[in-house]
Amino acid sequence: MMKRTKEQLLVDRTRYLGPNVSTFYDDPVHVVRGEGVWLWDADGRKYLDCYNNVPHVGHCNPRVVEAICRQASTLNTHTRYLHDGILDYVEKLTGTMDASLDTAILTCTGSEANDIALRMAEGTTGKRGIIATDATYHGNTALVSQLSKSNPPSVGFGLGQFFRFVEAPDSYRNPDPDGAKFAQSVAEQIEAHEKSGIGFAALLICPYFLNEGFPDTPDGWLKPTAEVVRKAGGLLICDEVQSGFGRTGTHMWAHEKMGVVPDVMTLGKPMGNGHPIGGVVTRGEILQTFRSGYRYFNTFGGNPVSCAAAMAVLEEIEDKALVRHANTVGQHARKRLEALQAKYEVIGDIRGSGLVFGAEMVLDRDSKEPASEFTDRVINAMRQRGILHSKLGRHKNTLKIRPPMPFSVENADLLFDTLDEVLAETRLAP
Amino acid sequence: MMKRTKEQLLVDRTRYLGPNVSTFYDDPVHVVRGEGVWLWDADGRKYLDCYNNVPHVGHCNPRVVEAICRQASTLNTHTRYLHDGILDYVEKLTGTMDASLDTAILTCTGSEANDIALRMAEGTTGKRGIIATDATYHGNTALVSQLSKSNPPSVGFGLGQFFRFVEAPDSYRNPDPDGAKFAQSVAEQIEAHEKSGIGFAALLICPYFLNEGFPDTPDGWLKPTAEVVRKAGGLLICDEVQSGFGRTGTHMWAHEKMGVVPDVMTLGKPMGNGHPIGGVVTRGEILQTFRSGYRYFNTFGGNPVSCAAAMAVLEEIEDKALVRHANTVGQHARKRLEALQAKYEVIGDIRGSGLVFGAEMVLDRDSKEPASEFTDRVINAMRQRGILHSKLGRHKNTLKIRPPMPFSVENADLLFDTLDEVLAETRLAP
Repeated sequence: MMKRTKEQLLVDRTRYLGPNVSTFYDDPVHVVRGEGVWLWDADGRKYLDCYNNVPHVGHCNPRVVEAICRQASTLNTHTRYLHDGILDYVEKLTGTMDASLDTAILTCTGSEANDIALRMAEGTTGKRGIIATDATYHGNTALVSQLSKSNPPSVGFGLGQFFRFVEAPDSYRNPDPDGAKFAQSVAEQIEAHEKSGIGFAALLICPYFLNEGFPDTPDGWLKPTAEVVRKAGGLLICDEVQSGFGRTGTHMWAHEKMGVVPDVMTLGKPMGNGHPIGGVVTRGEILQTFRSGYRYFNTFGGNPVSCAAAMAVLEEIEDKALVRHANTVGQHARKRLEALQAKYEVIGDIRGSGLVFGAEMVLDRDSKEPASEFTDRVINAMRQRGILHSKLGRHKNTLKIRPPMPFSVENADLLFDTLDEVLAETRLAP
Repeated sequence: MMKRTKEQLLVDRTRYLGPNVSTFYDDPVHVVRGEGVWLWDADGRKYLDCYNNVPHVGHCNPRVVEAICRQASTLNTHTRYLHDGILDYVEKLTGTMDASLDTAILTCTGSEANDIALRMAEGTTGKRGIIATDATYHGNTALVSQLSKSNPPSVGFGLGQFFRFVEAPDSYRNPDPDGAKFAQSVAEQIEAHEKSGIGFAALLICPYFLNEGFPDTPDGWLKPTAEVVRKAGGLLICDEVQSGFGRTGTHMWAHEKMGVVPDVMTLGKPMGNGHPIGGVVTRGEILQTFRSGYRYFNTFGGNPVSCAAAMAVLEEIEDKALVRHANTVGQHARKRLEALQAKYEVIGDIRGSGLVFGAEMVLDRDSKEPASEFTDRVINAMRQRGILHSKLGRHKNTLKIRPPMPFSVENADLLFDTLDEVLAETRLAP
């Protein structure tokens, strides 16, 4: 199918997909093949993928591909028939969690999962006020897209009225080592929801604040926040789409790291290694409340092929001990980042855990003025050298490195050796 | 993975998936394998599948399976890189439609597609009032689930306020041969939306009213309705999830059959033969309005594997001439239904086009009193004889037969021979 030039691909994207369909990098990559932590473009050039978390156990992981092919050629249908696949998967998935999280609804995307989670909160509390951070993203349905402050509040069927935002944690500029400030700001928004008459239903957060720039939140950091939420009678919803499945290296789920057990937990991207599957895990009584108060069926959700793909992902994490591996590689990455920070004034802060790590770039270490434009040039220079990663955070000045889980110490060395060269060559002013 | 008894499967479903997770048939089928129009259960028993429209080109269609396996082992990633797959597919898909329908957003489900379509209507018209029929289903997100009157209006973040309903067409009990009555009832709800201050944004319908019991609506039937919608400045959204991809046998898309070109068209279930893919097709300017007014990205949407599966479905429809095939088999089915109607008083009305057909069961042909309970027993008796289909419509008394598209004349004969036996043996009173 590889036939268009890059110029023609860009023209046809606008022609068939409309304007404003974003791509990564000033010079987008035309990918044609993937394997493990590697991607190849149409010219046969190889790239180290330091960013894609969807192919969690590696691009084209053989175990996952085999599971998909085997099940797709055997049977693929919906859950109104009986099938072992979905039950085996939910049994194994919930077996990795606190005993209270024992039932699930399987969906096709993390967006669908969060869309359900908010309705679970509405059904359980009888209220509709949701709290999220001001620098997050939880999906693309009409309901959950309003959780992104970057989506215009004037659109989306007036759903914006139900959302209030707290300032995203920022360990670099606004330290809050024990999470007490964050808990206090949540308490303030709970009060505002209650005063407004909408009432407080839930706090929805990524427990490791991946979109917010993964601030340095020590283990147990969410405990005071969870207390505030429970005291107010609301639900704690943890969106583990990015932070789960062992990403942080220390725990299978980031909420464990943060010292809390959510009432509802949502899953997406890495769950099927790219096969479209998402899910909501919760306590039996919350699921029952949702199931009896709302009509819900998902045609593709929990089908045998999706469950086979997702099961292969869990098995691969287990067999290859990928959580421990993420911890080992993450600690090595941390040391390499520290060495770079000692060498380059522009690296203001380094953060991360396991296989999500990065560095915040600043024009001045005292003023902490974000080096956003510089960061952008670094990302693009790295791409030209065959290293793919991205940036994020409120100021778009944090290198975000979040590779497939098989990413090795050697891969990390290639990444940081190249970053060293790029930082040496990139001038602070454009 | 086949290891639980049927009893254990049912226990574990409640245990892991919660209560109220519906199954088909009083004695649910434990399926383990599918091929073409056939399904096999765990005991090796073979069933003729007369109902599943998701495996559109047949269970485990070899072309689709091969496409999925090939692409899944080559590359699967999101659309922020460049790739030919999504462009090839959208080019081919829009090539089957009116020239005005020339751009698309690919999603993972029909629900996500309708969720976008309603926001396109909001963005384009600046209004939020949607009209649907009172016996429909358009998906499971918080927004679109409120389009089902069977979902409690008290839940769903107050979104129910934006929906008004018209009585579903019913050619048997309330004839409307040229669609004028339906157009008039849409006009009344438009006026009600305008009067309420919400304003009219869109009419969202399945152009062949599949959930409503596929009433006998002659070709061109939606023309007066489309006129009313356009005159009021609203969008006509056609949900072709069930009615599209040649299902009706006379046209690739049911809106063509109904004589209209929608402003927005949504797709789902059969698109990838079970692989989770859906989509929204619309005019460039509507897509542009949506893209500039709303933040939208779908991680799995339009990925290379989904597009390969969907492309294989289109190729299979074309190569096997499945639309013409559906017409041929549908005409044969019609004749067999007519013969049964002459023999059995309980068959009040027969309807359908192509590979969606059925019969409305009544206790009395004069009063047209629905034989709902009888229909239920027929469905279950058919299942015991190895023929799988279902029922639908406002009174749940219409046999709904909607098999995979390779369903043959011989398959239809087996279905109707068995139905003949079951009708002969099933007493009207329980």
